[in-house]
Amino acid sequence: MCGIVGIVDTGGVSFPLYYALYALQHRGQESAGISTFDAGTLYKHKAQGLLSEVFDRDILEQLPGSVGIGHVRYPTTGENRPENTQPLNFSLKGHHFSIVHNGNLVNNNELVSEYEEHGHIFATTTDSEVIAAIIARELTLSGSMEDAIVLCMRKLEGSYSVVTLLDDTIFAFRDPLGIKPLCIGKTDHGYMVASESVALDALGAIFIRDLRPGEMIKIDKSGISCRQITKSDHTAFCLFEYIYFARSDSVIDGVLVYDVRRKIGEMLHQEAPVGADIISPVPDSGTSLAVGYSEASGIPFKEGLIKNRYIGRTFIMPTQKLRENAVRMKLNPVRGHIKGKSVVLVDDSIVRGTTSRRIIELVREFGAREVHFRVGSPPVTAPCYLGVDLPTRKELIAHNRATDDVCSCISADSLHHVSFEALIEATGIDAADFCTGCLTGCYPVKIPNECSACRHVDFIHGSYQTRLDF
Amino acid sequence: MCGIVGIVDTGGVSFPLYYALYALQHRGQESAGISTFDAGTLYKHKAQGLLSEVFDRDILEQLPGSVGIGHVRYPTTGENRPENTQPLNFSLKGHHFSIVHNGNLVNNNELVSEYEEHGHIFATTTDSEVIAAIIARELTLSGSMEDAIVLCMRKLEGSYSVVTLLDDTIFAFRDPLGIKPLCIGKTDHGYMVASESVALDALGAIFIRDLRPGEMIKIDKSGISCRQITKSDHTAFCLFEYIYFARSDSVIDGVLVYDVRRKIGEMLHQEAPVGADIISPVPDSGTSLAVGYSEASGIPFKEGLIKNRYIGRTFIMPTQKLRENAVRMKLNPVRGHIKGKSVVLVDDSIVRGTTSRRIIELVREFGAREVHFRVGSPPVTAPCYLGVDLPTRKELIAHNRATDDVCSCISADSLHHVSFEALIEATGIDAADFCTGCLTGCYPVKIPNECSACRHVDFIHGSYQTRLDF
Amino acid sequence: MCGIVGIVDTGGVSFPLYYALYALQHRGQESAGISTFDAGTLYKHKAQGLLSEVFDRDILEQLPGSVGIGHVRYPTTGENRPENTQPLNFSLKGHHFSIVHNGNLVNNNELVSEYEEHGHIFATTTDSEVIAAIIARELTLSGSMEDAIVLCMRKLEGSYSVVTLLDDTIFAFRDPLGIKPLCIGKTDHGYMVASESVALDALGAIFIRDLRPGEMIKIDKSGISCRQITKSDHTAFCLFEYIYFARSDSVIDGVLVYDVRRKIGEMLHQEAPVGADIISPVPDSGTSLAVGYSEASGIPFKEGLIKNRYIGRTFIMPTQKLRENAVRMKLNPVRGHIKGKSVVLVDDSIVRGTTSRRIIELVREFGAREVHFRVGSPPVTAPCYLGVDLPTRKELIAHNRATDDVCSCISADSLHHVSFEALIEATGIDAADFCTGCLTGCYPVKIPNECSACRHVDFIHGSYQTRLDF
Amino acid sequence: MCGIVGIVDTGGVSFPLYYALYALQHRGQESAGISTFDAGTLYKHKAQGLLSEVFDRDILEQLPGSVGIGHVRYPTTGENRPENTQPLNFSLKGHHFSIVHNGNLVNNNELVSEYEEHGHIFATTTDSEVIAAIIARELTLSGSMEDAIVLCMRKLEGSYSVVTLLDDTIFAFRDPLGIKPLCIGKTDHGYMVASESVALDALGAIFIRDLRPGEMIKIDKSGISCRQITKSDHTAFCLFEYIYFARSDSVIDGVLVYDVRRKIGEMLHQEAPVGADIISPVPDSGTSLAVGYSEASGIPFKEGLIKNRYIGRTFIMPTQKLRENAVRMKLNPVRGHIKGKSVVLVDDSIVRGTTSRRIIELVREFGAREVHFRVGSPPVTAPCYLGVDLPTRKELIAHNRATDDVCSCISADSLHHVSFEALIEATGIDAADFCTGCLTGCYPVKIPNECSACRHVDFIHGSYQTRLDF
Repeated sequence: MCGIVGIVDTGGVSFPLYYALYALQHRGQESAGISTFDAGTLYKHKAQGLLSEVFDRDILEQLPGSVGIGHVRYPTTGENRPENTQPLNFSLKGHHFSIVHNGNLVNNNELVSEYEEHGHIFATTTDSEVIAAIIARELTLSGSMEDAIVLCMRKLEGSYSVVTLLDDTIFAFRDPLGIKPLCIGKTDHGYMVASESVALDALGAIFIRDLRPGEMIKIDKSGISCRQITKSDHTAFCLFEYIYFARSDSVIDGVLVYDVRRKIGEMLHQEAPVGADIISPVPDSGTSLAVGYSEASGIPFKEGLIKNRYIGRTFIMPTQKLRENAVRMKLNPVRGHIKGKSVVLVDDSIVRGTTSRRIIELVREFGAREVHFRVGSPPVTAPCYLGVDLPTRKELIAHNRATDDVCSCISADSLHHVSFEALIEATGIDAADFCTGCLTGCYPVKIPNECSACRHVDFIHGSYQTRLDF
Repeated sequence: MCGIVGIVDTGGVSFPLYYALYALQHRGQESAGISTFDAGTLYKHKAQGLLSEVFDRDILEQLPGSVGIGHVRYPTTGENRPENTQPLNFSLKGHHFSIVHNGNLVNNNELVSEYEEHGHIFATTTDSEVIAAIIARELTLSGSMEDAIVLCMRKLEGSYSVVTLLDDTIFAFRDPLGIKPLCIGKTDHGYMVASESVALDALGAIFIRDLRPGEMIKIDKSGISCRQITKSDHTAFCLFEYIYFARSDSVIDGVLVYDVRRKIGEMLHQEAPVGADIISPVPDSGTSLAVGYSEASGIPFKEGLIKNRYIGRTFIMPTQKLRENAVRMKLNPVRGHIKGKSVVLVDDSIVRGTTSRRIIELVREFGAREVHFRVGSPPVTAPCYLGVDLPTRKELIAHNRATDDVCSCISADSLHHVSFEALIEATGIDAADFCTGCLTGCYPVKIPNECSACRHVDFIHGSYQTRLDF
Repeated sequence: MCGIVGIVDTGGVSFPLYYALYALQHRGQESAGISTFDAGTLYKHKAQGLLSEVFDRDILEQLPGSVGIGHVRYPTTGENRPENTQPLNFSLKGHHFSIVHNGNLVNNNELVSEYEEHGHIFATTTDSEVIAAIIARELTLSGSMEDAIVLCMRKLEGSYSVVTLLDDTIFAFRDPLGIKPLCIGKTDHGYMVASESVALDALGAIFIRDLRPGEMIKIDKSGISCRQITKSDHTAFCLFEYIYFARSDSVIDGVLVYDVRRKIGEMLHQEAPVGADIISPVPDSGTSLAVGYSEASGIPFKEGLIKNRYIGRTFIMPTQKLRENAVRMKLNPVRGHIKGKSVVLVDDSIVRGTTSRRIIELVREFGAREVHFRVGSPPVTAPCYLGVDLPTRKELIAHNRATDDVCSCISADSLHHVSFEALIEATGIDAADFCTGCLTGCYPVKIPNECSACRHVDFIHGSYQTRLDF
Repeated sequence: MCGIVGIVDTGGVSFPLYYALYALQHRGQESAGISTFDAGTLYKHKAQGLLSEVFDRDILEQLPGSVGIGHVRYPTTGENRPENTQPLNFSLKGHHFSIVHNGNLVNNNELVSEYEEHGHIFATTTDSEVIAAIIARELTLSGSMEDAIVLCMRKLEGSYSVVTLLDDTIFAFRDPLGIKPLCIGKTDHGYMVASESVALDALGAIFIRDLRPGEMIKIDKSGISCRQITKSDHTAFCLFEYIYFARSDSVIDGVLVYDVRRKIGEMLHQEAPVGADIISPVPDSGTSLAVGYSEASGIPFKEGLIKNRYIGRTFIMPTQKLRENAVRMKLNPVRGHIKGKSVVLVDDSIVRGTTSRRIIELVREFGAREVHFRVGSPPVTAPCYLGVDLPTRKELIAHNRATDDVCSCISADSLHHVSFEALIEATGIDAADFCTGCLTGCYPVKIPNECSACRHVDFIHGSYQTRLDF
């Protein structure tokens, strides 16, 4: 998961890019970078660390120009390498080309082989470099950036929201299934694209609409234009953007994330009510879920666990005892709220189950009489190949294990996952328009040794010029 | 405001001190330090920055011993100087002496003059060094640390919670009015003191009780003992610990902070109900207040503003436009929750009024029909001399200004501060036992050019040996 | 100018590479990097800064393997960019490829265009990446690294000493004119190549011989082999390696640099004797020259200027007065040696003349009666396109200016440059085997708008297998 | 050993202090600091590291004022602690007091005890803090800084050159035996004091004279004045300043260090001639010695060992083989100069003998036929208590070991130390005016368990007003 942004604004872009990335920092804390273009020169800065560690005023002031793109990175594959920081920057027949990417290709290896045959050599291990290589080659052959992107999109399989800068023009495109989000905004003196609408809010930009799956847009100083490159009969939005990734104040593909989460909380109460004393979130991501549950149930919302606001870099403690304490550093049970009480804990998901078990133990240790666990997503039973950092089946607690078994594994008094139907109802989006790979093991794109039969999607390639509907 | 901690535990103290300070990080993010004593040597490390920036595993492993103290600093006076980091460390006739202090002396200058006459020279500008100088001199003269602390406490005026290390023994004491908090806990193999009970929770330590105002305790490997040094007929607890400073999961002087805040929220509704669509906190400190207001009113609790979780170091933006955007970096209005709605915003306090005004403007800009402001503290009309970083009267928006005027200054549709009586009721503590200087301009200690007549407190000096009531 | 090294040694290479680069640090202080290969993985670390700032023991221990290459960089073109640090690392059809380069291509732009047509995109501005691109493409087409290098060497024009790593094998090659040095050594359990013999000395390695111009060598765990790729009737060794760049304890192409410099000093005395009181070097590069002059003349060698040993990062002083003082920070005249004396200052070269003038002024200020300037190189009258960082003709003081004029410009009492003939005699190498571009304006390779007619060199391409003559 | 400086100059002092400390960097590379005074405020900056790492232009520009002092530190006792960086800064009854110190007190412990009795508490372990405590107390009692210094000098035993700043006035004083150097200079718009004359040269300041042993001077904007506080019939200049510590371009107590070293080289030849092929210094400190030996003997001066100019931070190598290589990183033998030759190596001193042995082995390894070692100091047989970082007797190779034995220990073909008489003749100073503790074990001040009988010095305390003899 990453956060990406591109801005063309005659008032200068380095500070706006910084603000926008700041609003997207939850999508990646490992590295940050910005490239801008001005008067024939590409200016760039990127490094590992939080945005506020990577940039300061001096650095931003040395990134001139009215066109630029930016990136914050959360490594999909667990790798943490300096050369994988983005944007990737290239020179190309006297032109400057820079690229940022959110998503995960599933045919990366095939594409690397193909382009190595064409004489390309790869410096990094990111699929972003593959996308750059394809565009570069096709641009060289065709001379047209738009054609290059069209050809590129035909070759890519997987999830990709991409923003590129070619000199003073920004091109952005989103995969035909719309797996990862990308939206368009109007700034004071130009236009922008960003992973989530909160990046627009941070600049006071006006939300126009999401990029359509399979769409490409072009922004330069003369304005914005769009082209529908590929059409499919269904989309495959990532469900976990709504459940966990996106900021709750983001509107993604027309839906306010906060409201989805609150409604899931209500559904959880309807599906699995419990006569408890308090409803408490597992902070931070369980908060809107718990508010929804509390309102639907009439049971008071009380924070049974308080999160330390100052989590910085942490390190491995030398002894087991200290490592167990480490959970307490982050989450402190409020004895006054839970001692002798029946507590409903609401969390967004269970992955390995280890954290859930520790939290429940901790709450019991502070005197809770009963601990009921309510989860805002169905059981996660399969890995993700499209950009979410989930472990293998073997490590997933819900893989080949009934909910009752999971309940006793995490030592809860009761456990309920929201049903898939209720979750879909909460989003207000058609079930067929979501990727449900991690819940069902059936994926919207072909993945070796995985099933994709149940999710047949027809793509209609071809270039459909449309106009932006402001 | 600072966070302080002292631990004697035969299992080693450097990692526990780190955990405890981590839980107290909200009390100071400017600098951090730890001193430990082992086998005749004082080990120490301190620097400017967050705890997680100052310490890592290697550093903690180089701080051996079963006795130690720690400190996180938030500068009372706005100064940010490397030499003011604590603990302050001294050698004293072959002994090692280290000290941390939370509070503010009001007779600092007089004491500096007095001890300069005695030949002491001062390296720093902190009142902590004055306390150290007094103890050092009296210890030299009397040979007894306890006597030195007794004499020291007679000389100090103001707020002070102090923890000192003298070789392998920890002494801690709290001012006779108990202005700043300090509590005692039982660790696995020893005892500890800390500013707030959350530091105990972080270690799995058992809360014993708060230090009594005017009390001194001594901890060494043989155990813990206490002595009542000074008695007064009233205390002067800092009200703002309950309203703003302390973590909501702390229990201070017997009261869970979260519950106080929630109750204040209920009182705010009773005193100033409003027929609104949503109740939204100004995060983070308004959250428990808003939950209380929502429950009492039945109006839904919805976050109208979302706080960016990744606030790091920030810098001054070069233009006015960018500076105004800076508020949006931290707080993003949720359009879906506030557009066309009547919104109640609940915050803990108004100081200068500038932030409140910007927040209200922002919420209006995102479409709120009405914005009602509810505040969890009475109007702040006077400065604080006892450890809270408040500005001068001139800068306080409520100084010489009626609430109606303030309301229009911050452009709210209505404004209500909780009444002093309701606030007191929420705490469950006698009104006479609070310092109300910043609300009334009448202080519990003598301050040049300020009134203290209305708050006459009799101190009974003398040494009252008591026993710990476990 | 850069320093490069490659080692295959079963005893491990990261520490030996560090030592070797340390010995080559005079060839580049801007950045440093090492890549090693072990069990299918490429390990790498590089950053801006001195070697001792970039590497420490922990980092070196995380670079396993018995094959590796390293680089220290001094930017030829004045650019100082993080992405230009070397080695450049690539993945190539499952293989790992890493490259370091010392020299300067003169047909860089043409090659970039050609390979962009082939679909390659370039991330950096270094000609090293061009060399990598050519090798990668030809390797893909031919499947043979040796063939790829042969084809690559046919395309490259300019100076290049290159070391590459392809998985567990090192290939090194030197341009057909041998402009930049590269030598071969035998380590305890393997072989190495390095820019100068001092890198071999640092490891206790045995000097075998220099790479021949136009030769390629291959080192792997089975040993070393070599192939003569291109032959020419003359070489074009860089004269300034002998005069200034190389460490005086290096043996380059058979000649000990120290002895050349000492002999130049003797020649300077023979050509321009002067009845002075002391002979003083301009440290550090004038030292061996001055020792030679002193011995030949019988006039005592005395340091009239002492160099500060602790030159670190420096910064621009805010006032003119302070800037003038800056010279004194680096060079302090010894009043006792020069007051009232006639002083001969011996330096390696004059480029812009500004530093020479300031030094002479400084020596006069400390009381020298006469200052005679003797220079170990003929007048520099033209730029260098082959790796030496010289300015344009306009900035060169000797361009279109007679020595008498230069003498008065730098305010010396007399000025003499060593004659070209004497310089050549000192090296013991045939005059025709040197590049004399910066002295004559006539270059050994074709350069746009420059003359190369007078230096016609016939290359005989073809592959001449030879055997190493140990 | 440390370098100290103080400047009063109406043109501003922070940049001049930086330059002066830069010239004194050889006296200490561990930490650096500057304090300046301007308009009632003390400005200060200090940290561990080289001067160029501690200061930059921004920092210097934030140190305003026309009065300041500075320090570079080389730890006498091997301790490397942040709190020991100097200047030490204090506030004192509204005044600002800052102090730097070069030297070592021998009655430090007694003084600490005495002032702890007076109620002073010590934060650091440096004797500099003791000097500050004494001055502070006496200044408080007497009200006169001059009287305070007079009393202070009566209490201090050992070596001390001290510069203090009291608001806008600088006071400097030197111990009655003049063990450590300190000299006075005239700057453009004021005066300065510094450890060595090279610091004056760096500023273009005019050398006035050395501070006399037992003298105090005062500098403020009205000018400079001096007072002879203590007189003794002899001085005890540190011999090693001439042999090793001081920069060769410094003039100390009237003598140019370079000339002393050159003359010692001549003496070494006279005392121990050898029919060798080359004379080579052990760089850097043996250079002037070797030049002297070469000229006296007529044997050519040739560098048989080249020192790497880029020694930065080094670290411990993981294996014995690598550690042995570490010597080669610093010193590279020049095979062409030593192979098959008889070599005279000239060094300044032998302490433990380990480095000498390794160097000789290295030179033999590169083919030297014979290696003769000549040393510019008599055998060091006793420790130093007065500021030179020498080890204990047990570790000194010359302790209880005849020169012949040492010769075979270091595996030299012959070994000669310059005789004490010749060394003294080279300095031109009376033998009785040197401290010879490390050569004879007889010290000029009383040291527990050491002899000082043979060096009886009469001090005449009392205050002798003299005038500066410009």
